[in-house]
Amino acid sequence: VVTAVDRPLAIIAGGGSIPRRVADAALLDGRKVLIIGIDGEADSRIADYPHGWFKWGNIGHLENLLAEHGTRDVVLVGGVKTRPDFRRLKLDFRTIRILPEILSIVVDGDNTVLTGAIRFIEKRGYSVIGAHEIAPDLVAEAGAVTRNVPRSAQLDDAKTAMNAARSIGLLDAGQASVVVNGRVVALEAAEGTDAMLRRVAELRDGGRLKWSGRAGALAKCPKPQQDLRVDMPTIGPQTVDTVAAAGLAGIAIESGRVMIVDREETKRRAEAAGLFIFAFPETGEAT
Amino acid sequence: VVTAVDRPLAIIAGGGSIPRRVADAALLDGRKVLIIGIDGEADSRIADYPHGWFKWGNIGHLENLLAEHGTRDVVLVGGVKTRPDFRRLKLDFRTIRILPEILSIVVDGDNTVLTGAIRFIEKRGYSVIGAHEIAPDLVAEAGAVTRNVPRSAQLDDAKTAMNAARSIGLLDAGQASVVVNGRVVALEAAEGTDAMLRRVAELRDGGRLKWSGRAGALAKCPKPQQDLRVDMPTIGPQTVDTVAAAGLAGIAIESGRVMIVDREETKRRAEAAGLFIFAFPETGEAT
Repeated sequence: VVTAVDRPLAIIAGGGSIPRRVADAALLDGRKVLIIGIDGEADSRIADYPHGWFKWGNIGHLENLLAEHGTRDVVLVGGVKTRPDFRRLKLDFRTIRILPEILSIVVDGDNTVLTGAIRFIEKRGYSVIGAHEIAPDLVAEAGAVTRNVPRSAQLDDAKTAMNAARSIGLLDAGQASVVVNGRVVALEAAEGTDAMLRRVAELRDGGRLKWSGRAGALAKCPKPQQDLRVDMPTIGPQTVDTVAAAGLAGIAIESGRVMIVDREETKRRAEAAGLFIFAFPETGEAT
Repeated sequence: VVTAVDRPLAIIAGGGSIPRRVADAALLDGRKVLIIGIDGEADSRIADYPHGWFKWGNIGHLENLLAEHGTRDVVLVGGVKTRPDFRRLKLDFRTIRILPEILSIVVDGDNTVLTGAIRFIEKRGYSVIGAHEIAPDLVAEAGAVTRNVPRSAQLDDAKTAMNAARSIGLLDAGQASVVVNGRVVALEAAEGTDAMLRRVAELRDGGRLKWSGRAGALAKCPKPQQDLRVDMPTIGPQTVDTVAAAGLAGIAIESGRVMIVDREETKRRAEAAGLFIFAFPETGEAT
């Protein structure tokens, strides 16, 4: 009989280092792990951990892996660059049997796919757990993440940007906004955060936006509809570089609800560029 | 004694045809007009009407023109491409005397300049009137502007886009949004409506956004803070071209509160491209 303590935490892993960070956190907590790498996405270094591999056409193999290790809790984490095209995959028998269910999940937009994937997994008796529930260090506590803290005008911009980001979240439009000297200069929708930040840099380079030195803030927070177990807003070293290139003074995030990819490198670059990263509590303080 | 009937409507004119449209409407209404063209901005064809010219450094001359014709009502209309730089202008004596007041108006953002200009004019006993109050045809009545009317899914997108545009107006961010098949794909801030529409076209060309045929809508409405007497959202032939290039199905505007520049050409191009232009009442129907 497999006891609860013996049941490994399954980490279905896309790209990047976060799957291994989650595994480390679970191991430190005395928990067994099983990383199941998505073929073509997961980092080969998952081989340093108890692991397996899974191809999109091979749902039967995935289910076998989960079952034979007696896992109950599943984390889905890491980037997925390529959306599976089930019309072109070699499918195992199990996958073919459940294909109608899979296709009904895959046809819609991103959020629906993830919601569908969660439903698919939970229907089979597994619990889907957020990576940040295993590794709380992936998100920020309220307050300054960096040594740099926002000065008064920057804090005002950060709060205004956070409120703007929350407003457009209510529209299910985007997760991020930029405010400089009290003015909302950019709102994110389908283009994504990096493209929005590059737009701000271009508007400033072209003279359409003017300010001296570093000013203003990027704010990022989840949309109310997002299932944070599998779909969290993220910032990372690249966000810091793009924020710096746009001439902004810092980044505001929601505490506990925005993932910081490669936290040490993110902090290091922000501090080197003189930027703040500041986390507001989910409600209240930024209003 | 100059009687009320004799007092001409003064039209302080930036670029484009709208100042002459306003003059035509006033003349048809049996009212005298005086177009005062801003040097370097107004179309030379204002010379077909009772007119004068005004240089930014020459506020004294403007005040004399208004006074000697006995005007009381002033319309400010037409595009202004160049913001006056009062440090580099040849200033008349009157302008120098009121320069501190002018500079306090000019230092801030666009809306503040216009608000300041209105205050400046009204303090001197003039009434500032909206161009659309003289020429109601510059704005749309509720309903379809084009022969094309939005089909059911397009009408839903138009309503969603209108609500999104109103939401970001409350943030004082922008006037416009784009919604396609229920999804908010772009929100306008400092980049302006045309740049936002070009972004949608690029996201579609790059495969980030996908839909077949024409779908979705641009919505445009004023921010609650805008003084519609001098600062109205506008659409025109170029908006139609950019909306068409983005693969959208049409344009939603607010009735009575969005100016249609060159209405006939705007309609003609929209109908030729199979686009709708539809005006929602200010409140209620789009929610």
